[in-house]
Amino acid sequence: MPSSELTLYYAAGTCAQAVRIALEEAQAPYRLERLDLSARQQQSPEYLAINPKGRVPALATGHGVLTETPALLAYIAQRFPRAQLAPTDAFGFARMQEVHSYLASTVHVAHAHRPRASRWADEPEAIAAIQRKVPQNMTDCFTLIEDHYLQGPWVLGDAYSVADGYLFTIAGWLKSDGVDIARFSKVHAHFERVGARAAVQRALAD
Amino acid sequence: MPSSELTLYYAAGTCAQAVRIALEEAQAPYRLERLDLSARQQQSPEYLAINPKGRVPALATGHGVLTETPALLAYIAQRFPRAQLAPTDAFGFARMQEVHSYLASTVHVAHAHRPRASRWADEPEAIAAIQRKVPQNMTDCFTLIEDHYLQGPWVLGDAYSVADGYLFTIAGWLKSDGVDIARFSKVHAHFERVGARAAVQRALAD
Repeated sequence: MPSSELTLYYAAGTCAQAVRIALEEAQAPYRLERLDLSARQQQSPEYLAINPKGRVPALATGHGVLTETPALLAYIAQRFPRAQLAPTDAFGFARMQEVHSYLASTVHVAHAHRPRASRWADEPEAIAAIQRKVPQNMTDCFTLIEDHYLQGPWVLGDAYSVADGYLFTIAGWLKSDGVDIARFSKVHAHFERVGARAAVQRALAD
Repeated sequence: MPSSELTLYYAAGTCAQAVRIALEEAQAPYRLERLDLSARQQQSPEYLAINPKGRVPALATGHGVLTETPALLAYIAQRFPRAQLAPTDAFGFARMQEVHSYLASTVHVAHAHRPRASRWADEPEAIAAIQRKVPQNMTDCFTLIEDHYLQGPWVLGDAYSVADGYLFTIAGWLKSDGVDIARFSKVHAHFERVGARAAVQRALAD
């Protein structure tokens, strides 16, 4: 595979970090294309031609562009099987997908109601009301993860998977949402454990 | 596989319909366990022991319970490969997952802000403001699907997949969200095409 085949469209502080971690864990050859969200570069005509959603991450592959973090994480695990970043049995793979889908459609969404509340209401008072509820919703989500969806030491048990970098990425948003990660002892220990990995440090290096 | 192995925890009018359609398309042996959401049965101690999220769908398998529609759809496709309900190449499978993830984490979420607005705000005025924005957000989502994510005749092109029953299920919510499906000619034709399938009619029979 030529090293130019995979290009990750990326912005710091977004869920694209989970995809970058997966690429680093897989030792995949990839190129990083940074978007400046403060300049709304994700809404430029050039980027909308790549990803009409105007969001990150997007991954350009030899076959076309893919989006959506859960899709990208499973794709990377399948494209680089020697890195063993996902279970290969149907049930284990589905368990990983369950975690990915919960993180994407419930936890990420709960978080997004703080920085992106204007997606769901126009009036300033309503936006403020939405933002006030974020700490409680994030607390509820991480209580569920702590109690039911973090087997330990890794999300899926004994084997590290792409789900670990995803949980790590979203857990990293708790502080800005006004929630102390130390309330969740297993999540907190997992966050430290993932953060200490060499591939994760490479992904966070800049 | 014994016929009792798969049990779908289900409620009419929810995204569990997409999973039921997939099971019917796969000709999978399964048992349906209906929950009465109006009686808040999904919050009963018995059901929370099955799915601590208190939501549907959940699928009890011989290995354990799985949740989250995208995870269940891919699992069913992989468990019943003879039904050919998903691409088997890595890129095609990822493309399907991309559609599933967008439907779950953006489109379903956009819809949920009407019936479930109280998840994201407490004050009645804020809830009303959230609900007012739903028709525009659903319109934006389906414009994107119409223009970019429905290849035709099926979502992924020439082959029917579990993604078709999922899009059909969520497109069925447009009317209640105040959006006329006829605004989206490809989505509308797809909705009719999926609804005419024998397996889908079995899934909707009651």
